[in-house]
Amino acid sequence: MSLTAVLDRIDADFDASLHRLFDLLKIKSISTDPAFKADTATAAEWCARELQAIGFDASVRPTTGHPMVVAHWRGQVGTGPSVLFYGHYDVQPVDPLNLWETDPFEPRLVARPDGTKMIVARGAADDKGQLMTFVEACRAYVAVTGGLPVPVTIFFEGEEESGSPSLHPFLEANKDELKKDVALVCDTGMWDRSTPGMTATLRGLVGEEVTLTCADRDLHSGLFGGPAQNPIRALSKVLAKLHDDQGRVTIPGFYDGVEDLPPAIKAQWDGLGLTAQEFLNPVGLSTPAGEAGRSVVEQVWARPTCEFNGIVGGYTGEGFKTVLPAKASVKVSFRLVGKQDPVKIRAAFRAFIEANLPPDCTVSYKTHGGSGALALAFDSPWIEAGQKALSAEWGKPAVVMGGGGSIPVVGDFKRILGMESLMIGFGLDDDRIHSPNEKYELSSFHKGIRSWARVLAQLAA
Amino acid sequence: MSLTAVLDRIDADFDASLHRLFDLLKIKSISTDPAFKADTATAAEWCARELQAIGFDASVRPTTGHPMVVAHWRGQVGTGPSVLFYGHYDVQPVDPLNLWETDPFEPRLVARPDGTKMIVARGAADDKGQLMTFVEACRAYVAVTGGLPVPVTIFFEGEEESGSPSLHPFLEANKDELKKDVALVCDTGMWDRSTPGMTATLRGLVGEEVTLTCADRDLHSGLFGGPAQNPIRALSKVLAKLHDDQGRVTIPGFYDGVEDLPPAIKAQWDGLGLTAQEFLNPVGLSTPAGEAGRSVVEQVWARPTCEFNGIVGGYTGEGFKTVLPAKASVKVSFRLVGKQDPVKIRAAFRAFIEANLPPDCTVSYKTHGGSGALALAFDSPWIEAGQKALSAEWGKPAVVMGGGGSIPVVGDFKRILGMESLMIGFGLDDDRIHSPNEKYELSSFHKGIRSWARVLAQLAA
Repeated sequence: MSLTAVLDRIDADFDASLHRLFDLLKIKSISTDPAFKADTATAAEWCARELQAIGFDASVRPTTGHPMVVAHWRGQVGTGPSVLFYGHYDVQPVDPLNLWETDPFEPRLVARPDGTKMIVARGAADDKGQLMTFVEACRAYVAVTGGLPVPVTIFFEGEEESGSPSLHPFLEANKDELKKDVALVCDTGMWDRSTPGMTATLRGLVGEEVTLTCADRDLHSGLFGGPAQNPIRALSKVLAKLHDDQGRVTIPGFYDGVEDLPPAIKAQWDGLGLTAQEFLNPVGLSTPAGEAGRSVVEQVWARPTCEFNGIVGGYTGEGFKTVLPAKASVKVSFRLVGKQDPVKIRAAFRAFIEANLPPDCTVSYKTHGGSGALALAFDSPWIEAGQKALSAEWGKPAVVMGGGGSIPVVGDFKRILGMESLMIGFGLDDDRIHSPNEKYELSSFHKGIRSWARVLAQLAA
Repeated sequence: MSLTAVLDRIDADFDASLHRLFDLLKIKSISTDPAFKADTATAAEWCARELQAIGFDASVRPTTGHPMVVAHWRGQVGTGPSVLFYGHYDVQPVDPLNLWETDPFEPRLVARPDGTKMIVARGAADDKGQLMTFVEACRAYVAVTGGLPVPVTIFFEGEEESGSPSLHPFLEANKDELKKDVALVCDTGMWDRSTPGMTATLRGLVGEEVTLTCADRDLHSGLFGGPAQNPIRALSKVLAKLHDDQGRVTIPGFYDGVEDLPPAIKAQWDGLGLTAQEFLNPVGLSTPAGEAGRSVVEQVWARPTCEFNGIVGGYTGEGFKTVLPAKASVKVSFRLVGKQDPVKIRAAFRAFIEANLPPDCTVSYKTHGGSGALALAFDSPWIEAGQKALSAEWGKPAVVMGGGGSIPVVGDFKRILGMESLMIGFGLDDDRIHSPNEKYELSSFHKGIRSWARVLAQLAA
């Protein structure tokens, strides 16, 4: 069976794989800092050259910002769905540099007392180590079989850490070239060190800024306090009504399109055994504030929220001013799940605000983004394939995870290319991405490569 | 009857009175600006000299800031209560100077088409014109009768517009000299152009800053939104509970010590005919937000309030950040009336906050001032005397008014000297105090002098 031979080849070649990853980690591809523009281009060229060496038709593709790398496999393929693999070769800045124990661009292996090892360098986990798991899996497959089990295109971005300004136009301009049956996105994590995971859902987001205006100027609270409507009071009253005592959002129609979890998924999540205390204690909290009767995992991965991100009104400096303010504002964001419609949510929210205002209070809005949730059906064939492959490699069932936040590229693939994404990654929560001493588990790198080989085989099965 | 002769003398001498006021108005006694320190001293000396000319034992009394002027009448007096008259000879800055139609320190008389006239200059109404009404009344009394009907001490401050830093220590150091049976404070207004008023009550003030803390750091709303308690949500919930649907404050015990108005006062206030629209429309409002069933006059003059003066939490800059903040704060002020105890109000407020917090929410406080209401009993003899005198001069009953805000000197007289204050003044709401083109009605000046003559006579009656 060729997969076994491919996995053996991965193991045999692993030192060389690690060496190649170190080469990439040495390149200072900090996309957000113009001082590293040439380094960032160097990283793109390095990626293209490696892919060419494997046999890909790879090229560095200019944008108005940092270049993309696109590589098509033109050789022998098996039958199966075509895939677009996504990763990013740019990294976060390294400051504060003095908190790094060693040079962030001199990668090193650090062994722990229990024998486990980690790769320490900027970008080790986010995202160079991750993207190289796929590259090395392809390399082994090609070396052993002379081809790949499914049609593969690789797409690397160099601006993920600086807001992806070129992504949207690049996808628009290259739709036909990049649209495949499914995207494989490697920029997420495992459930824990020994339990693989796939991210199947990402919550959507609606942001809205609400400003209430009462009087046409700030008033003296001695002269007008009492008769004059206070916008902070009005705002508090309406915000207080947005959640009931069970933590549910009270906007009429808010839960339209929200479905309960399939029993198998709920059972899997409950079986993870993550307690509210384990989740909340590390940030100084202990009691779940979301919907009553739902686990913290379900609250974060599968339930919609209404959160207040900022509020301001009146005098907020040192000391005290007896002002009765004219205005008060709040920034509100909704995380959406399932089929919740961002347009309807925004409209229902505005209607709720307006239905709950007192006299002498006018409202204005600023819109900040709106996108629905992204989700693979829990019973999709991509999930099934990933589940089989990962479970075989790691010896335990892969967790079908949700993502609490958003991963913009997944939304762009969906909107622009009409393509769904299977998010598989091998990061851990303690990888210190974006922070000093970023690391990637050596086991994540090694078993990550093996995992991708299994996923490719499974997709072709 | 000597009062008639005194009033005649006031009328006969009025041009000279106006001339003297203009002399005082020309002195640039801007207390807050060190550049005008010498001018401010000049104004004090001018006042002392004028009082000496009348026959007062007057002196300029140094402080660490601007000097006080203290003048005792040592001559012939009738029998009656001793009085301390208070005014301030310093003025506000004049910027923006370009908005003045003429030099703020070149006083002028401006005639309106209807024949009424106004005195335009910085300090015309606040407070040089007002304090000179009393000085000129004394001058006329002495000129006609050779003495004053009651023992009079005059006390002028030169730091009222810059926070009165020397007032407290000066009163402490000169208690015996300054404590009289009653203070006459001339720094307030009439009900309207033709209706005199006395201010009998001033609301007290308790200021409190409340900070709620949930997580020990700001969190990402995607990763923690739902399970993690949001301090803006918690704050909104508790603030929303502070007022019921009738606009009443819900803190247990809040209304202890608040009494309903005497029927005669309520009837007088209702008879003023000020509608909510007349009060609120000028600032863009129309519907009273205070306690249901009480007039705007009663809400501002005689009812306690709980107002939110400022609120802040989370991200408040441009655009949007999906932060789930660790903290949120509000500045709350309570206006107190009657016998409401500021210490008890603060304690009850804190207990209310703490009783209404969700789990994972801690609270801290900053204290900003606390003082009870100041009030002459509505049936006090001082009110009665003022009422008779003012009503006789203006030909209609004087309104017994409340003050929505505070006048610090009145509190200091009460606390340090144990002395109550009868606040009588002749300003109007449209006098533009603290603004360009400040004015004082010529009728306020003329009838104000006559009013004080009548008050002095009435006190001796």
